[in-house]
Amino acid sequence: MIVVLKDNPDQKQLDNLVSWLKSMGLDIHFSQGQSATIMGLVGDTAAVDMDLINSLDIVETVKRVQEPYKNVNRKFHPEDTVVEIAGGIKIGGGNFQVIAGPCSVESEDQICLVAREVKTAGARLLRGGAFKPRTSPYAFQGMRAEGIDLLMEAKEKTGLPIVTEVMDISQLPLFENVDVIQVGARNMQNFELLKEVGHLNKPILLKRGLANTLQELLMSAEYIMAGGNEKVILCERGIRTFETATRNTLDLAAIPLLKTMTHLPIVVDPSHATGIASLVKPMAMAATAAGADGLMIEVHNNPSAALCDGAQSLTPEAFADVMEAVNLIRPLAYKG
Amino acid sequence: MIVVLKDNPDQKQLDNLVSWLKSMGLDIHFSQGQSATIMGLVGDTAAVDMDLINSLDIVETVKRVQEPYKNVNRKFHPEDTVVEIAGGIKIGGGNFQVIAGPCSVESEDQICLVAREVKTAGARLLRGGAFKPRTSPYAFQGMRAEGIDLLMEAKEKTGLPIVTEVMDISQLPLFENVDVIQVGARNMQNFELLKEVGHLNKPILLKRGLANTLQELLMSAEYIMAGGNEKVILCERGIRTFETATRNTLDLAAIPLLKTMTHLPIVVDPSHATGIASLVKPMAMAATAAGADGLMIEVHNNPSAALCDGAQSLTPEAFADVMEAVNLIRPLAYKG
Amino acid sequence: MIVVLKDNPDQKQLDNLVSWLKSMGLDIHFSQGQSATIMGLVGDTAAVDMDLINSLDIVETVKRVQEPYKNVNRKFHPEDTVVEIAGGIKIGGGNFQVIAGPCSVESEDQICLVAREVKTAGARLLRGGAFKPRTSPYAFQGMRAEGIDLLMEAKEKTGLPIVTEVMDISQLPLFENVDVIQVGARNMQNFELLKEVGHLNKPILLKRGLANTLQELLMSAEYIMAGGNEKVILCERGIRTFETATRNTLDLAAIPLLKTMTHLPIVVDPSHATGIASLVKPMAMAATAAGADGLMIEVHNNPSAALCDGAQSLTPEAFADVMEAVNLIRPLAYKG
Amino acid sequence: MIVVLKDNPDQKQLDNLVSWLKSMGLDIHFSQGQSATIMGLVGDTAAVDMDLINSLDIVETVKRVQEPYKNVNRKFHPEDTVVEIAGGIKIGGGNFQVIAGPCSVESEDQICLVAREVKTAGARLLRGGAFKPRTSPYAFQGMRAEGIDLLMEAKEKTGLPIVTEVMDISQLPLFENVDVIQVGARNMQNFELLKEVGHLNKPILLKRGLANTLQELLMSAEYIMAGGNEKVILCERGIRTFETATRNTLDLAAIPLLKTMTHLPIVVDPSHATGIASLVKPMAMAATAAGADGLMIEVHNNPSAALCDGAQSLTPEAFADVMEAVNLIRPLAYKG
Repeated sequence: MIVVLKDNPDQKQLDNLVSWLKSMGLDIHFSQGQSATIMGLVGDTAAVDMDLINSLDIVETVKRVQEPYKNVNRKFHPEDTVVEIAGGIKIGGGNFQVIAGPCSVESEDQICLVAREVKTAGARLLRGGAFKPRTSPYAFQGMRAEGIDLLMEAKEKTGLPIVTEVMDISQLPLFENVDVIQVGARNMQNFELLKEVGHLNKPILLKRGLANTLQELLMSAEYIMAGGNEKVILCERGIRTFETATRNTLDLAAIPLLKTMTHLPIVVDPSHATGIASLVKPMAMAATAAGADGLMIEVHNNPSAALCDGAQSLTPEAFADVMEAVNLIRPLAYKG
Repeated sequence: MIVVLKDNPDQKQLDNLVSWLKSMGLDIHFSQGQSATIMGLVGDTAAVDMDLINSLDIVETVKRVQEPYKNVNRKFHPEDTVVEIAGGIKIGGGNFQVIAGPCSVESEDQICLVAREVKTAGARLLRGGAFKPRTSPYAFQGMRAEGIDLLMEAKEKTGLPIVTEVMDISQLPLFENVDVIQVGARNMQNFELLKEVGHLNKPILLKRGLANTLQELLMSAEYIMAGGNEKVILCERGIRTFETATRNTLDLAAIPLLKTMTHLPIVVDPSHATGIASLVKPMAMAATAAGADGLMIEVHNNPSAALCDGAQSLTPEAFADVMEAVNLIRPLAYKG
Repeated sequence: MIVVLKDNPDQKQLDNLVSWLKSMGLDIHFSQGQSATIMGLVGDTAAVDMDLINSLDIVETVKRVQEPYKNVNRKFHPEDTVVEIAGGIKIGGGNFQVIAGPCSVESEDQICLVAREVKTAGARLLRGGAFKPRTSPYAFQGMRAEGIDLLMEAKEKTGLPIVTEVMDISQLPLFENVDVIQVGARNMQNFELLKEVGHLNKPILLKRGLANTLQELLMSAEYIMAGGNEKVILCERGIRTFETATRNTLDLAAIPLLKTMTHLPIVVDPSHATGIASLVKPMAMAATAAGADGLMIEVHNNPSAALCDGAQSLTPEAFADVMEAVNLIRPLAYKG
Repeated sequence: MIVVLKDNPDQKQLDNLVSWLKSMGLDIHFSQGQSATIMGLVGDTAAVDMDLINSLDIVETVKRVQEPYKNVNRKFHPEDTVVEIAGGIKIGGGNFQVIAGPCSVESEDQICLVAREVKTAGARLLRGGAFKPRTSPYAFQGMRAEGIDLLMEAKEKTGLPIVTEVMDISQLPLFENVDVIQVGARNMQNFELLKEVGHLNKPILLKRGLANTLQELLMSAEYIMAGGNEKVILCERGIRTFETATRNTLDLAAIPLLKTMTHLPIVVDPSHATGIASLVKPMAMAATAAGADGLMIEVHNNPSAALCDGAQSLTPEAFADVMEAVNLIRPLAYKG
């Protein structure tokens, strides 16, 4: 961390600052320039509050040189993390997996039918929403506990491990047999929830928030890893921009960039990112080409009758077509 | 709600759509144009999923005419809501209140000292963070339960009602004696939390999310009101944009615009919005002029030693100066 | 276009509106609902000002059903446009081309060397900036007229057609022998310039503005086509968002979405979009997979000495590596 | 400027970098830390390309300490600039002015009528669009040269100096008698136009671009001042964000923040920023309270018949009401 002081800083304030920094175990290197004095802080600066230093009268500006994240940082963990899920399924480090299924679990028939169809087409994990975050209190909120039960039945019948979203800490006991717990975009900075899933020994799929930077995504993953859970899968699902032609703007450059920042696997959700079923295939292909470790795709037996997000769901036939295209691109994908 | 059909829609699909809409209790009015058939849906369309209809093959586009919110809608509740807080303090409907205090509760001395000083300067509610949402797991997370206790002591000593943030449902029992519960920007779409505080009989200060539209803010308020709690105070605190000179971009047009959409009171937080102490005064003045029902301002006894967000905190002296400027503008403020 | 009227509209104002709409050659279909009267406007609504109608006291809301663009609209021109450039080179309709070269023309040696190298690697058009838009007046502004001359020499020596940017109408006479004129992102809504290049018989590469929607991009292309020039190539080059890890956010969903909206070819510029050389390869691969008609890539003989945008330039060797990867993906690319 | 080098930088590359920096007249101060070497560059770094240095293999990161702008920088010009317009009218340094008039000049009667009415209400400058930037080529493009003539007639009849927008260098001869030349938001980075108006001896009203930062706005003002024209007036008119309830998001924190960065006067345009007539008054009041040096407001004799931007225009009566409210707030406005 570099602190640039203003001209002629008040000596007493400067002494206070230096003492405080030393009390945090940092070494300080002074460099006297013509118009500014620069302090280089050496040591573990992850816990140092830049805003606080910046607020001091004697400080011109503060710049961070090192990343504020550690456990997720590729610098300290150069090899790709491979997250092991149930049934010997792995993701990351060259293991590419497709997660597919309906937006919401609606009935036993529906979820089992979709599960069989996405398995046939090549998906290795089943997704389905039991607890649904909906903008409107009047919209369908998911089948909740019953939805989890139906997912378990689908798992038993097809062998596909389950990925489903938790919305609150109080729901976690219901997730005991869930294979991968999803933390949704709106909860990416629900820090209490992050801490709690950080104490589990279970893969966590962490979705990027609509207004969150890649560094913030990594800081949220750091929350989980700081608790001891190293099984974190990141998910790019689009950010909110001024463009309204798609629901969100899918940031595919995030894939190769995150790969340089972190060792964690990265999957892409083209369904939620675009909100338009016809864009799922090209974006799935593009994400694969760019080096994603997996995809998360909404598939519904009958898109028109889906209780939510129908506009972004594929039929099983369309999903099989996406899988075929993705499988062709896979061997040619960017590898860093 | 208006549904524009494509040319020559498949009759069977159209019949299905019409049946489904009627099953939701809606009346349908057809209007045959030259190149498009338009269906006008009359009735309670708040629960109708636009995305779903939009996904149908036979549909060109769907447009909502009515707002998807009811309880918060000024159309159905033309008079301003006045939220009554403890001690006879009211906000809304011409009652303007300033909430002030430190970012974080740090010690009994600190919170009591600041409480006395902001009270002297004219604040009528005390804010202070006990549970702190921090981007980094290594940053100070607040004094938590102990922080709530200290706020209660400050309340006892000064008589100021307390405003403090809840981060998770499991913390709510600790908030029994808190006067106003704050739902923070990162939790604006934590729908489980919204439902829970919707069952309380206590004012809720709901902050706008960094990437949320005004309509989404109102939908989150609708979650609270749908649970029976009518004591909702909205808070504009800046949105995330490409501009990095300020922490967020304070959207002051939200004040008069929200006033036309809803009857709920609206306060503005210039401290978090800008992240720069010297901008708090002009933005507090501007928010007051634009018709805000109140302000929420960070004040610290010693800004440089604050454990978080120091850069946006004022000294008590600077806060008194802001209050003086705001009080002069108050009688001239926009009234709609 | 659909106009939803307020309850009990003033009859005189309504008559005025109806007369005005009829004077624009539109037919009006009324549909009386329970709580609203809907007017459907049939005819050429491209010139109708939605904002103006929206401002009327009697109007609740206005919604456009038809696109405001005509010449660029795929509905009226279902086949892909193939733009023919000099030397029999075509782009669009299955013809994929890579445009490569340095950010700025710096010397005869430099531009000729790079031209030979990119040609060897497979580029079919040479780019190079003669007039450079720079944020700072103190930064290098390009070699200007002399730069155009050097591009002509490179063209003569290598046979590669030239793509270079015009910044002002007054520069156009210098572009007589330029093969493709680029209108840069900052000039996407320089409407006077668009009109002027609309009168040329020469391909125009139109870059998307940093804050412009896809519809606005198409409206700017419509300006060019309305003048008679049908040789328009669109270019996605990233939009400005809150994310600062990349210079801009590359919006690859724009490729398949634009393909449904328009018949014009679409190229992608991963160099400017990301501003990071190491991201050019994966984003070039992703753009190709998503169905782009071409790429525009910065290549420099010596990235470290480039006078501008060095951070986003590849060496010729790195460019050859990108070409190889892109060529492998090409046959598998999304075709709509 | 601070350059942080990577560990064990290649000595030859480092020597090259040092030579190049010295050739630009900079002094270099080395500071050796534990894990990084820091170079402090002292001298005129405005022309140094950060991106270029950042692209070097041996460089970890580059941070600018000094602002890249000089002439507009308040550090080098502590007093407020007062721009003198025709007729003894001044703006800046405590001189507050309101610019008002229709979006487009439509006829002699219209512009003269509006001019008289806004003068009566207290406006001291007349605005009116002769050249109109319109998204659609089929929308009204303004009366152009004839519109300028009509503005001159209105000036003659009322004595109000004229503010009107130039869209291209070739139009400048027509602006000889225009008092203040407006460079619109879409042209904020039309650098050739900026250079040209930088050679005039006439006030320039420079509007912030929809996707431009405050620093970029100042860099564009620097273009004008670098040409010798010191009469620059900045205009905040909203930026493009994800929020669609207003046309743009008015960034009022820009006013006090720009005042710390520059000595130039700042006016605010609430009409274009919000696009909603009813929001003009509260935003005009808020901008005034925040310390703006002036306002730019659209006024039309008959808003419903305006040929463009009608939704954001006030009637003369409504404008008089805004003026009254603004004049009351003026003496209480923030002064820094």
